[in-house]
Amino acid sequence: MKAVLAPGATIGILGGGQLGRMLSLAASRLGLDCHIYCPDAGSPAARVSRYETLGAYDDLDAIKRFAGACDVVTYEFENIPAGTAAQASKYAELAPGARALEVAQDRLTEKTFLRDKAGVKVVEFSDVATVFDAKRAARRVGYPVILKTRRFGYDGKGQAKVDSEAEMDAAFASMNGAPVIMEAFAPFKREVSIVAARNHSGEFAAYPLIENEHRNHILHKSIAPASGDDGAAAQMAKRIMDGLDYVGVMATEFFQMDDGALVVNEIAPRVHNSGHWTQDGGCTDQFEQHIRAIAGWPLGNAMPKRNVVMTNLIGRDAANWEKLATFPNSRLHMYGKSEMRDGRKMGHVNTIGDAL
Amino acid sequence: MKAVLAPGATIGILGGGQLGRMLSLAASRLGLDCHIYCPDAGSPAARVSRYETLGAYDDLDAIKRFAGACDVVTYEFENIPAGTAAQASKYAELAPGARALEVAQDRLTEKTFLRDKAGVKVVEFSDVATVFDAKRAARRVGYPVILKTRRFGYDGKGQAKVDSEAEMDAAFASMNGAPVIMEAFAPFKREVSIVAARNHSGEFAAYPLIENEHRNHILHKSIAPASGDDGAAAQMAKRIMDGLDYVGVMATEFFQMDDGALVVNEIAPRVHNSGHWTQDGGCTDQFEQHIRAIAGWPLGNAMPKRNVVMTNLIGRDAANWEKLATFPNSRLHMYGKSEMRDGRKMGHVNTIGDAL
Repeated sequence: MKAVLAPGATIGILGGGQLGRMLSLAASRLGLDCHIYCPDAGSPAARVSRYETLGAYDDLDAIKRFAGACDVVTYEFENIPAGTAAQASKYAELAPGARALEVAQDRLTEKTFLRDKAGVKVVEFSDVATVFDAKRAARRVGYPVILKTRRFGYDGKGQAKVDSEAEMDAAFASMNGAPVIMEAFAPFKREVSIVAARNHSGEFAAYPLIENEHRNHILHKSIAPASGDDGAAAQMAKRIMDGLDYVGVMATEFFQMDDGALVVNEIAPRVHNSGHWTQDGGCTDQFEQHIRAIAGWPLGNAMPKRNVVMTNLIGRDAANWEKLATFPNSRLHMYGKSEMRDGRKMGHVNTIGDAL
Repeated sequence: MKAVLAPGATIGILGGGQLGRMLSLAASRLGLDCHIYCPDAGSPAARVSRYETLGAYDDLDAIKRFAGACDVVTYEFENIPAGTAAQASKYAELAPGARALEVAQDRLTEKTFLRDKAGVKVVEFSDVATVFDAKRAARRVGYPVILKTRRFGYDGKGQAKVDSEAEMDAAFASMNGAPVIMEAFAPFKREVSIVAARNHSGEFAAYPLIENEHRNHILHKSIAPASGDDGAAAQMAKRIMDGLDYVGVMATEFFQMDDGALVVNEIAPRVHNSGHWTQDGGCTDQFEQHIRAIAGWPLGNAMPKRNVVMTNLIGRDAANWEKLATFPNSRLHMYGKSEMRDGRKMGHVNTIGDAL
């Protein structure tokens, strides 16, 4: 039985981006203070938080000072160095724990865990150390295949689709020597995800299944709830989270095949862009849910009362804020980023639909 | 035509309490930064805001520095000294303007404005300089009457109900020589209020009528929407706000008589406790609405999608936070105040009901 953090306690967040910002805003609503750790001054999260520590993510002295001033430490991105996570957890509780980070940081560890420990369906995959390995593995599963760097991939970066053996040498070379895995290509009908929470007592709460549309490998739109939610995704999320003894909110992304079968693509050990609709769905939003879980609180209600469509504002999309602010059923969420760069997530809009 | 403040602009807020805190959280959602002016370090509002200036409310040098760093200045309480408001408006736009403050700070100015300029119904009232004035006025309107200090009254403080002439000397003496008005006692059926917004273009949006229950002169519960909203309250609010050329959110409190007639009790030139339900009503909440109005944005949607009952957590009520956090249709809002003192507003709970 973990201690329950009362209002007035301090939540530490590694990372200063929009996810940290929205976590901080949610924590504030519950009367909790936030402490942001980030290398850059004036980050979106620090602007709305009581405390800020500036430091590199591998500055273990700064991490020690930061964690020592927090009651619990969490993170808004999964590429926290393992040594940093270990250091933070010496001076405060770390939630989700180091095992979730380890699994989510490396596609090979992740897929192996998902298949062998959690027992959920994933695409066929192989650890390929050389281009010869890659060709042999591809012949076995059949083209097309996908090469992916094991670490630091996001929004389609570090990936190459390979349609035939003739393309393999160039594709493998484009990985620049990084450790790589090869995955079978899943001819999916749609991409869906599920956001769920688990707390120290093992209490579990899943939001409904979400349908996601990507543009240029970046999430463009989430439709909540997705049609045809049969509970299978939530059951898989629960197996994964139980397997990791997970505390907090986690997102699981799936490919859904023509026959409805769900194949797990990847997990994100944190609040997730495909859960932003919860802010205006009439339920406990994913940010509050994460804070509740890591603070030892009971989980909130994850059943939405309204349909919501979430649309990301990427780069220059954000210049439309003034028009978007006039739509009576749209709620605007801006991240406090000063510069509109191509591909940069600047905000999102939740459009509220019919009652469920 | 006023300038529209884009995301990234800075909203200044005079006052560091819960209203400033919730204004700041709403502004953050829109990508605006907040700057809190408050005499005390670590105030509820400053904990969630980017900038903080510590200073007394009559420190005109500090006010100058503060306002000079903001794009617009607003306030969370109406007892801002007139000289402070004048100083702030030299260095930034002040919204709502100085006229709204002047009217709301003095019950005599307020009632005279409401009756003679806005043309709304108020109880009979008299300026009473001496106990002899008070007795004469009371004989005219009939007992019981209420003596109220003209300035600095809130939550029933600075008020005395006088049931007969025999009690008048003691009641008048209890005002300690402060300027006083006498009001006829309104035998009301219930207390209702309306929260409405107006922007620079004169655009107006009212939330539905709210029914309020007080305990010990402090708001205990607001029921939204109140039964029997016939639009009369919104019309009166509009007349008052047009008369003040008001920019921002304003609350108007009414006594409702047995025949349904509404008598204006007082106005609050700010977001208001009886508007907290809007945070979970499925519409633009009053805090965002105020920020939209003062930032020159179009007003948001004020039509709620759900019934909500808002209950204040006063003093030790807040010790129940852990139980309240388990209720699936209740949303908890805590103010970040460290000490639970009697009569102190520590937070509130919005309980979400049926769809409207």
